[in-house]
Amino acid sequence: MNGHTSPWRTNRNRAADLPLTLEDSMRNPPRGKNTGGTSRRRFLTMTAGMTASLPLVSVRESAAFEDLRGGRASDDSLVIKAQGSFMVGGTVLTAANGDTFHGDHAYVQYQIPPDARSLPIVMWHGGGQFSKTWESTPDGREGYQSIFLRRGFSSYIFDQPRRGRAGRGLEGTTITNAVPNESGIWGIFRLGRWPVFFPNVQFSGAYDPDALDQFYRQQTPDTGPSFDLAHRHILISAAAALFDKIGPAILITHSASGRLGWPTAIASANVKAIICYETGSFVFPEGEVPPPPPPHEAIPVSLTDFLKLTRIPIQVVFGDNVPTAPTTPANLDQWRTAFVQARLFVDAVNRHGGDAQLLHLPEIGILGNTHFSFSDLNNRDVADQLSRFLSENDLDKRDPS
Amino acid sequence: MNGHTSPWRTNRNRAADLPLTLEDSMRNPPRGKNTGGTSRRRFLTMTAGMTASLPLVSVRESAAFEDLRGGRASDDSLVIKAQGSFMVGGTVLTAANGDTFHGDHAYVQYQIPPDARSLPIVMWHGGGQFSKTWESTPDGREGYQSIFLRRGFSSYIFDQPRRGRAGRGLEGTTITNAVPNESGIWGIFRLGRWPVFFPNVQFSGAYDPDALDQFYRQQTPDTGPSFDLAHRHILISAAAALFDKIGPAILITHSASGRLGWPTAIASANVKAIICYETGSFVFPEGEVPPPPPPHEAIPVSLTDFLKLTRIPIQVVFGDNVPTAPTTPANLDQWRTAFVQARLFVDAVNRHGGDAQLLHLPEIGILGNTHFSFSDLNNRDVADQLSRFLSENDLDKRDPS
Repeated sequence: MNGHTSPWRTNRNRAADLPLTLEDSMRNPPRGKNTGGTSRRRFLTMTAGMTASLPLVSVRESAAFEDLRGGRASDDSLVIKAQGSFMVGGTVLTAANGDTFHGDHAYVQYQIPPDARSLPIVMWHGGGQFSKTWESTPDGREGYQSIFLRRGFSSYIFDQPRRGRAGRGLEGTTITNAVPNESGIWGIFRLGRWPVFFPNVQFSGAYDPDALDQFYRQQTPDTGPSFDLAHRHILISAAAALFDKIGPAILITHSASGRLGWPTAIASANVKAIICYETGSFVFPEGEVPPPPPPHEAIPVSLTDFLKLTRIPIQVVFGDNVPTAPTTPANLDQWRTAFVQARLFVDAVNRHGGDAQLLHLPEIGILGNTHFSFSDLNNRDVADQLSRFLSENDLDKRDPS
Repeated sequence: MNGHTSPWRTNRNRAADLPLTLEDSMRNPPRGKNTGGTSRRRFLTMTAGMTASLPLVSVRESAAFEDLRGGRASDDSLVIKAQGSFMVGGTVLTAANGDTFHGDHAYVQYQIPPDARSLPIVMWHGGGQFSKTWESTPDGREGYQSIFLRRGFSSYIFDQPRRGRAGRGLEGTTITNAVPNESGIWGIFRLGRWPVFFPNVQFSGAYDPDALDQFYRQQTPDTGPSFDLAHRHILISAAAALFDKIGPAILITHSASGRLGWPTAIASANVKAIICYETGSFVFPEGEVPPPPPPHEAIPVSLTDFLKLTRIPIQVVFGDNVPTAPTTPANLDQWRTAFVQARLFVDAVNRHGGDAQLLHLPEIGILGNTHFSFSDLNNRDVADQLSRFLSENDLDKRDPS
């Protein structure tokens, strides 16, 4: 292959019976490189068929989504009015002689389509991850960055301070030597119980060893302390600085950034909506804090601050295979208690006059999603749910010209 | 402002007499936010005038460059056939129980235009930097990623293992707490002698405190050992793996990646040309190694390996304000000896029948460039020199359709 087409080399070996465990995948290794084009299409058609009969999106909405893809050439090319990157927020350390150190900023990559919708979408990765979360998927399909660009939204992909492309921080850390421990993310990211995938899982890595390899590699360590409560303000203030800079926008959070999204919206009135993919950590008004189901946080904030969250549409999204009874391993069980916490949060927001909802994808027939539903095999179905939410809340309008 | 336009907030205060030191800049601080549009255009026109009278590109070539921008809409939008990202190369550490750790890969972001030229361009950052090197400039203009996309090239922006978006490595490290030391990069990156910029410098940060702030922040630490000779093979093998994956392509290196580009081309016959922006470290055939001017390396390789570099066009590019006599500080003086080393390398390649050249930008009238000529204020002039080189070496052809 050459540079003319997508560089993704597909080594797929699809059959009517999809291998449902990594071991199955390995038992039927890819048969060389000549399984691209047709077999890939066949596979995607097949997996699409898993949910195709479900009424995910009305015909009217589908037409509207297609319309969003207007302004492009007749082929499938993306059209971008402007793209670039910048650092935002952060601190300057200055010595007596005037010498400096600039750090603790966030990094942002933006793409702006022609005739963009008024509200851009800011996408914030989760724990151990970086902007890759929103870029092309582990198996090389388009992720939210490109999908929502096609749908007319400007996107701002955010690397939080001390992570990925925002690695220059004021406080150091020690990064330890590698220890084989990737089995642990099977529970955290709800792929299955290592080494067996959930039977219905929509994770490309369950069917494609190359995609699993890519998924493991899309993690990156912190370059400074950021996770604990004492350092969280660095991340929140950088995110708020982004909203100060770009103006009103929609915030998408994932997992560990979920708990940072709530205080960001409290800090910046430019956060006009939050769509949170799977977190267990929420804020509650002082005096109304439920007992936290471990390991999740129920963070008290003043009623005044909490009421700021009642002025914007909020959607918390959970995928499939969330345990409904105590189970092992603990890092899988955490999603059971996270889900409980999410319901309590949504109830609290609505009790105070807000507009929050919990979207449990299996309840509307979207099955098999992991902790990364936005990059799973059915991520366009998941994206359609986001488009629906944005449309229903008038968040997808264009400025009157 | 909103998401419809570039998010870059220009706080410029341009006048006929450009401030030439940071202190001057600070003495005339930006007067609020209302200095965008017109003053920015005036400034760019003014700075463009610095070299506009020079015969940098013939009319014919300019027309050809314009033609490369065909296939787009009538506005200035970028058209992208495909974009995405992936990890390439790397290692898997496997435990006795089958658990794994994937790391030491490189990260690559690609953008492919419609009707792309046959050879993509791989862009590799230098020391302490990451992909940001090639993205939008510190003052928010287009960098090589977008410029060469407009000119019809597929681009692959490379984060080397243990840096930026390729932070997941097998060996750990300690990242120290910040110490104000950014004065040091003024010599290394040839901005001037801190805190005074070179009088003719084409560095946006000399005229715009916001751009200087951005430039400082585009650095990021290593997340594992990589700089020393013992770890260099990790970086080279990941780069060679990229060329194995995407096929024949052009390699651009910068500074610390310069010395990695030579062994990458030796390792992969898919490296079809190297354009190296300012390195001091070169390879030489065993027995022909010149005494290295410190702190640079003259790395011996077998004659067989060295001859592989004689089969591809090579251009080494240096900017302005390279000292011609010993000077201080030492990190500025290093470019004097690096330049000497570059001449010796070019001579060695050509002595063995190769096709290498040293392009010293001031010698053709392109003045004021720093160590980052490709993102300086006149980076389109510098890009035109690259286009000229690619054209003269038949590296910009399209496959016959």
